[in-house]
Amino acid sequence: MATDASKNPEIRNITWHHAAVSREDRERLLNQCGTVIWLTGFSGSGKSTIASALDQMLIKSGHLTYILDGDNIRHGLNADLGFAPEDRAENIRRVGEVASLFADAGLLVITSFISPYRRDRDRVRGIVGPEHFIEIHLDVPLEVCEQRDPKNLYKKARAGEIKDFTGITAPYEPPETPELKIDTSTCTPDAAARCIVDYLRRRNITYCSGDESSCI
Amino acid sequence: MATDASKNPEIRNITWHHAAVSREDRERLLNQCGTVIWLTGFSGSGKSTIASALDQMLIKSGHLTYILDGDNIRHGLNADLGFAPEDRAENIRRVGEVASLFADAGLLVITSFISPYRRDRDRVRGIVGPEHFIEIHLDVPLEVCEQRDPKNLYKKARAGEIKDFTGITAPYEPPETPELKIDTSTCTPDAAARCIVDYLRRRNITYCSGDESSCI
Repeated sequence: MATDASKNPEIRNITWHHAAVSREDRERLLNQCGTVIWLTGFSGSGKSTIASALDQMLIKSGHLTYILDGDNIRHGLNADLGFAPEDRAENIRRVGEVASLFADAGLLVITSFISPYRRDRDRVRGIVGPEHFIEIHLDVPLEVCEQRDPKNLYKKARAGEIKDFTGITAPYEPPETPELKIDTSTCTPDAAARCIVDYLRRRNITYCSGDESSCI
Repeated sequence: MATDASKNPEIRNITWHHAAVSREDRERLLNQCGTVIWLTGFSGSGKSTIASALDQMLIKSGHLTYILDGDNIRHGLNADLGFAPEDRAENIRRVGEVASLFADAGLLVITSFISPYRRDRDRVRGIVGPEHFIEIHLDVPLEVCEQRDPKNLYKKARAGEIKDFTGITAPYEPPETPELKIDTSTCTPDAAARCIVDYLRRRNITYCSGDESSCI
């Protein structure tokens, strides 16, 4: 900077304060309420596919979304974590903290993790704030997931090649009072995503600005 | 879901694929390029104040920003970390990973950490991708920072109450080729923020949609 104001005590001792931009400012800009949409369910229950379908529906209507899943978390932020019970808990804790930051930034953040333990999910609800947390249980019979087995993980688990596999050799604790429960053995991924979109509208998490294109 | 399609093999074995929403889709929606604006410098160099001023300027012109700083990181995601050298490195690594996710989501993310080690900052540059990383050195003489001492930290450090304090008892390694270097002893926080805003425009990270209100 060219100005030689370093000798000017008024600038050198300037009051270093600024009113912060608030969550509400960002939500107003985005025309939505920052929210964590937490998908939970067995491997093969449709979490990733529904997250992707939901992501597309919302962005097409002008809403800003972001997916947190194993792909962008396990290879980056949580690359230092394994699959021991304490590592799984720390994995979900960090995801919860990051999801909370995204919601604070005004985004609709969709998370896609098995997250089998009630305690871990409830902890995330506490971090995010219950009013900003939507728990969605993809409540599909285990046998349907095993039949789908898109990544051949159930086969490997049955063969003993994967230990502590949720539903086979490790527990899944279903949510007791999720905001939504969807059985994806009876509907398409698009129908499941539409069901979530309708819920967001009812809760006024997404809304119309008057411009029809922003209405979904 | 009402439809009893669970017996319909076409739905049960549906191909669970969806084209993903891309970074470019989100950037188009936001009319900006997701970027990490990394402020580095001594305590008292003006990081938080400039981050806040920049945040306000950008959001007023319709750009979506988010600040990552000690307040929202050290108390949440990194609450398990202390100040030992390996904890400091892990702190910056995680901040880099989260900043990278935010940039991928299309945001202009402003980080405000002393981040004294060149190796740590360079690692973040690698995580984020050099084309999305703007390192800004708030290059203020140590004596100016010590004179400001807004949190009385220098006094405590000189009195031996804080150990490993950057600039006093711990090193600061200045960036060798930062994208920007600003001496905040010679300008106001608003002028420093404006300097960054101008740089973002020159780099086409923020741009006009034709609507004058989006031009800054």
